[in-house]
Amino acid sequence: MINGHGDDIYRYKDIRINFSSNVYNGFDHEDLFCHLANQLDHVSNYPEPTPAQLENNLALFLGLQADELMVTNGATEAIYLIAQTFRRKHSAVLMPTFSEYVDACRLHEHQLTNIYQLEQIHVGFQIVWLCNPNNPTGAVTNKETLVQCICEHPNTLFVVDASYAEYTDQPLISSAEGCLMPNVLMLHSMTKDYGLPGLRLGYVTGSASLLEDVRRQRMPWSVNQVAIDAANYLLSHQDEYTINLAELMAERERVAQQLSQLGGVQVWPSDSHILLCRLTIGKASALKDFLAQEYGILIRDASNFAGLDSSYFRIAVQTPAENNELIQRIAEWIAQ
Amino acid sequence: MINGHGDDIYRYKDIRINFSSNVYNGFDHEDLFCHLANQLDHVSNYPEPTPAQLENNLALFLGLQADELMVTNGATEAIYLIAQTFRRKHSAVLMPTFSEYVDACRLHEHQLTNIYQLEQIHVGFQIVWLCNPNNPTGAVTNKETLVQCICEHPNTLFVVDASYAEYTDQPLISSAEGCLMPNVLMLHSMTKDYGLPGLRLGYVTGSASLLEDVRRQRMPWSVNQVAIDAANYLLSHQDEYTINLAELMAERERVAQQLSQLGGVQVWPSDSHILLCRLTIGKASALKDFLAQEYGILIRDASNFAGLDSSYFRIAVQTPAENNELIQRIAEWIAQ
Repeated sequence: MINGHGDDIYRYKDIRINFSSNVYNGFDHEDLFCHLANQLDHVSNYPEPTPAQLENNLALFLGLQADELMVTNGATEAIYLIAQTFRRKHSAVLMPTFSEYVDACRLHEHQLTNIYQLEQIHVGFQIVWLCNPNNPTGAVTNKETLVQCICEHPNTLFVVDASYAEYTDQPLISSAEGCLMPNVLMLHSMTKDYGLPGLRLGYVTGSASLLEDVRRQRMPWSVNQVAIDAANYLLSHQDEYTINLAELMAERERVAQQLSQLGGVQVWPSDSHILLCRLTIGKASALKDFLAQEYGILIRDASNFAGLDSSYFRIAVQTPAENNELIQRIAEWIAQ
Repeated sequence: MINGHGDDIYRYKDIRINFSSNVYNGFDHEDLFCHLANQLDHVSNYPEPTPAQLENNLALFLGLQADELMVTNGATEAIYLIAQTFRRKHSAVLMPTFSEYVDACRLHEHQLTNIYQLEQIHVGFQIVWLCNPNNPTGAVTNKETLVQCICEHPNTLFVVDASYAEYTDQPLISSAEGCLMPNVLMLHSMTKDYGLPGLRLGYVTGSASLLEDVRRQRMPWSVNQVAIDAANYLLSHQDEYTINLAELMAERERVAQQLSQLGGVQVWPSDSHILLCRLTIGKASALKDFLAQEYGILIRDASNFAGLDSSYFRIAVQTPAENNELIQRIAEWIAQ
């Protein structure tokens, strides 16, 4: 899907508050930007054909071997490379979820099956794609249940998109644990970890032998020099990128509760900073237009997620003041 | 090919002068970098899923329709997308040339034939890949001959890589002319046009119907926000990026002549700023190491181009002073 994703901020003027992507906007990037500004002349040379030095640094940081990790042009490149590596396989996608798994599988001629719970997985599936915490629900699959499911299907490859792993307090399979499982590839998003979606910076982790196959599909220079420089900075300045997770989870609960109390909005249970909501009257697209045009607030019309309809929208929880404004404006719209 | 390209500057310390990529280093990027530094906060949002606004601007600049152009993550992404679009076709590659055409075709299971002159093209080839001006020879195929060949093979797709088009005074098929031919796709490199290989910025032009097929293979967000911002700046600041082509061509002739007169170096005829050279004694890898280690000068060991051997190296002509130093150091090495 090219159009219809969140963060379509380029389509509007004067967006002040952006709830529409799953990116947490609370980081202060000033020092990073200052660092990057001072070395923009690096773009006068080619980046490494594959960002091997960054891959070494990142592997060291995560306690992995360098061949257990591959940096990509956003997690999206990883999704497309994996779909390409395992061309024409039978893939199951745990729905509703991020649309790119299905799109990448279609492009590379997978046989596709939508599933809605882990219990539907059977030996006929060669690949299972799931997002955990999930987009757009924010829900986390119980770790023990997922590990058991993975172990029970040793001939099925599990592609676990962990892009939102930093935004939940629930237990998850770590990168290191994933590398020990011969049938798991994990997707990671530095975009999401550090709130920098414009740079295009993701990576995939997994056992060296699985990754070797994916690596063969790679084109050179897919990750640009500014993204590489930024990633190296981020790895050595972790202290500038801490989030108070307890506070964020409590704030999500507060927002979910207040939205539910408006009368007119149903909120799905979430384990992360993402909230999937459903209007009981009216369309999400109308609410989105109202908020954007009247108040410069952007939400995600979630009607185009497979399995959802025109009543669904999604938000990523931001600061309490921003969240309060959103709740107030949604209340206004409902009262109209 | 992941490793073995030029501009492997990241493998060396203290490279002062870089002849190793085909990038012209004579531009002053100060104003561009200043502009980009002031808007690095743009990376806090997603880029457009496809850079449609930039595509509009670029099409306008080139006198094309927006659907006759597609911006890519460097010309390399265009090469891989085209090979993917026409998967399993029979491709001929005009050799010796840039290795990525063959690599992309192999990845997407093309039947491959190496050809060495246009006369070898026959109806059995579904695709012909050629670089014009060529890398690594700098040679330009006569425009009339090429147009005639394209017209004579209406069922063969010609992928013409025009990455070095700005660096020759010979007549070439323009983007607009290419779009009028139903069997031509042209690759373009803003990397090369503006000396900014670290940004990853290229585009492909061609008839809307041909490009429609390629566009379907695209993943979202492949071009990052800094590259988009840079491209928009470049389009509106052309005056900062003029090259004196007559001077550059004369300088290439001078360098070619002086290298030839050293005794020990054969120089291929070139129509651009690229010079392919052959050592009559010794290996290009040894010369490369000597220049890098002793003098901080980087050249391209061209031994891994299909059809060439360990005696070949390639340079891109730079400023007269830099070129003089190169000639002097090569003379030293030969005299050893």
